[in-house]
Amino acid sequence: MDKLIEKLRTFAKERDWDKFHSPKNLAMALIVEVSEIIEHFQWLTEDQSRNLDQKTLAKVKEEIGDTLIYLARLADQLGIDPILAANEKMKKNADKYPVGKAKGVAKKYTEL
Amino acid sequence: MDKLIEKLRTFAKERDWDKFHSPKNLAMALIVEVSEIIEHFQWLTEDQSRNLDQKTLAKVKEEIGDTLIYLARLADQLGIDPILAANEKMKKNADKYPVGKAKGVAKKYTEL
Amino acid sequence: MDKLIEKLRTFAKERDWDKFHSPKNLAMALIVEVSEIIEHFQWLTEDQSRNLDQKTLAKVKEEIGDTLIYLARLADQLGIDPILAANEKMKKNADKYPVGKAKGVAKKYTEL
Amino acid sequence: MDKLIEKLRTFAKERDWDKFHSPKNLAMALIVEVSEIIEHFQWLTEDQSRNLDQKTLAKVKEEIGDTLIYLARLADQLGIDPILAANEKMKKNADKYPVGKAKGVAKKYTEL
Repeated sequence: MDKLIEKLRTFAKERDWDKFHSPKNLAMALIVEVSEIIEHFQWLTEDQSRNLDQKTLAKVKEEIGDTLIYLARLADQLGIDPILAANEKMKKNADKYPVGKAKGVAKKYTEL
Repeated sequence: MDKLIEKLRTFAKERDWDKFHSPKNLAMALIVEVSEIIEHFQWLTEDQSRNLDQKTLAKVKEEIGDTLIYLARLADQLGIDPILAANEKMKKNADKYPVGKAKGVAKKYTEL
Repeated sequence: MDKLIEKLRTFAKERDWDKFHSPKNLAMALIVEVSEIIEHFQWLTEDQSRNLDQKTLAKVKEEIGDTLIYLARLADQLGIDPILAANEKMKKNADKYPVGKAKGVAKKYTEL
Repeated sequence: MDKLIEKLRTFAKERDWDKFHSPKNLAMALIVEVSEIIEHFQWLTEDQSRNLDQKTLAKVKEEIGDTLIYLARLADQLGIDPILAANEKMKKNADKYPVGKAKGVAKKYTEL
């Protein structure tokens, strides 16, 4: 992840793109990429989404790449380490969703 | 990233959540988290988004954590390595956006 | 719809909100509301989404209201009549998706 | 709006699309259309978003049309009148955002 973030910094700097890469704009670019993932799944059943053909899988892989690119870039512009942020959130989630209460249930922690 | 993905697998398995974690559903959960990032930026100017107060920054950090969690989980359910996907995409982007053409310009490669 | 748009104009004017209501910001607010709809459906099966309990239905109704509010406001700020835009798009869709080709198939027109 | 909803029903029925049009799937299609609006604004300043060139405006108009189409269709599948939902929400908003407190301020009502 650190190498990716470094690569993205260089890429943006070479192209003089920092002026466009405000967190506000990057958040917009991020959601556009995620919706390109959504587009592949919108008319599929859940089972079909678990069994993509190779062509669709290759496209989804590209969109996942784009999503991580903008997420890493956004985090970097805010001085946030995304892996650390995820690990800290997982600790909170372990408290919010204890195995005893959350097993087999897809409810928000406020409703458990 | 690999450790995070492993941790997410264990977390879901302990809670018997794999049945909910179809790629279709995870893509939906992913976009919900990204929109929680968007919500913090929607009424801010770009400059303000570059200079968040500590309280807002802490919240955005949590949403970035959640976003990476669902992105990593989605990728894992599809057998995709997200860092690899991002690196492959960066190679394509270097071709699509050569420094000479893209410098200082925020246009899609199809319009360069 | 025209009355709603007029009401939204007055509401924003009274609160001196026009300065925040740039199309860019309104588009962000719009997608946040749509993702609040998504949040209700993310862990449901398609069948469950067709048979919401009254409590969830009431919440989704509110989010649909919010979505239409921001969509109407965005259209108005751009001088666009949303009903007219939808009707014109439906004419195009009738050409893109002729009954003979599109019947029972959920493919994009470019793949029909 | 009622005529549009009726037209959408006929369009879907002729194509045997009701089976794809679960609220879950329509919510996904809806957010994809909204993100196509976002895509036009992501690298623009707020001022630029208020002054679109004719070509971009025409494209945004189409995306607004698509968004209203899926919003109307989603509401219809749930038995919700979208205009009524918006009007009811506006009444709540008038209570949440009284002119005296909300004037010139872009804060969530919970922070006013």
